[in-house]
Amino acid sequence: MNVLLASTSTLFGGNYLEYLKPEISSLFAGISEIIFIPFARPGGISHEEYTAKAADFFKILNIEVKGLHEFDDQISALNNAKGFFTGGGNTFLLVKMLHEKGLMQVLKQNIESGKPYLGTSAGSNIAGLNMKTTNDMPIVYPPSFECMGLVNFNLNPHYLDPNPELKHNGETRETRIKEFLTQNDTKVVGLREGNWIRKIGEKTTVEGGEKTRIFEKGKEPYEIEPGTAL
Amino acid sequence: MNVLLASTSTLFGGNYLEYLKPEISSLFAGISEIIFIPFARPGGISHEEYTAKAADFFKILNIEVKGLHEFDDQISALNNAKGFFTGGGNTFLLVKMLHEKGLMQVLKQNIESGKPYLGTSAGSNIAGLNMKTTNDMPIVYPPSFECMGLVNFNLNPHYLDPNPELKHNGETRETRIKEFLTQNDTKVVGLREGNWIRKIGEKTTVEGGEKTRIFEKGKEPYEIEPGTAL
Repeated sequence: MNVLLASTSTLFGGNYLEYLKPEISSLFAGISEIIFIPFARPGGISHEEYTAKAADFFKILNIEVKGLHEFDDQISALNNAKGFFTGGGNTFLLVKMLHEKGLMQVLKQNIESGKPYLGTSAGSNIAGLNMKTTNDMPIVYPPSFECMGLVNFNLNPHYLDPNPELKHNGETRETRIKEFLTQNDTKVVGLREGNWIRKIGEKTTVEGGEKTRIFEKGKEPYEIEPGTAL
Repeated sequence: MNVLLASTSTLFGGNYLEYLKPEISSLFAGISEIIFIPFARPGGISHEEYTAKAADFFKILNIEVKGLHEFDDQISALNNAKGFFTGGGNTFLLVKMLHEKGLMQVLKQNIESGKPYLGTSAGSNIAGLNMKTTNDMPIVYPPSFECMGLVNFNLNPHYLDPNPELKHNGETRETRIKEFLTQNDTKVVGLREGNWIRKIGEKTTVEGGEKTRIFEKGKEPYEIEPGTAL
């Protein structure tokens, strides 16, 4: 497999995908066209606008971007594609669309056959075993929470450390993930912004400038350094 | 109806339910025993521990608390009860339990018949039309997101204003609720901590010390004062 799963598309103060440019360039080396999956629609942006945003970045790399929504036969579109990028937004909306259109398994098979895959945020969540550790609001009801399982754990993108100064009783991210572990025995990778997961062949590592926080049932959460195998 | 839906059980630096004591006392006036629904299990606390925590508070009001989990026939337990309290925690877990045990409609009918109901956080969410505006993590898959619809809108408990100093690209609460409105035409009440909704008979008002933020499809979000009818 050849997979890059980023916590976020955009660093604070930066431009869209800018910080990932060398990694993305290497991921899609030799490929001149990819399919963009715009279904997560951040802030309700249209499929067309979202695809144009992605295309605008990939122009710098001389890679053409086609939005999956443009195809009448989306299963064939995935099967004929050379590579994929799924953008962030709402994971419930993304997973609902992929399941209802019968695309989740097709996308998985194509990636497992070796086609490169880039995910950011919600697009990274769907590479996990299921979407039960998303931060998103359940604005629609998907027929299932199961995802592609390209890696044998779940992701929590945009992982955020507790803010001790916040006078607010909503749960911290850590509390939420610990609640998940009372109901599930699945490893969760808390991916801070600026970090990403890279899977090449059978080897999966965590990359980027920050440590990564790992949550497992029955263990205290722990931190791993960039470059560590997962 | 006689319903109190609080954003949070506990104010920052305060004790459990302390700030709501006069309101709770008036809600359950003349009642000596209520049923506590502990299924949301905040932080994975057991049903027994959670019920003990609720009972500890209600002792001050001379109200006895029985946990719903203690009954073999939970439908009869709801039908025979004098009043109800559903505590906060994980809304997905709470809604899954209520649907799977066939209790959601039974609880609704009992409350609609006039029995007093107190909800905090997740327990307030289930009084809305559906749980699609919860902040919680989807740690389990409920058979449906539909809730009791005791009020004709959705709630967002622990409503939190955007923090302009946060250098993080996760969505704000407002962004999330606006995404909800791209997919749904349901009013959302953003209930800040310290505020609650009170429904007596057919009249529903928002109460507490803070303004309340209202989100409707096709409108800019707006603020209403304590005491305003919803």
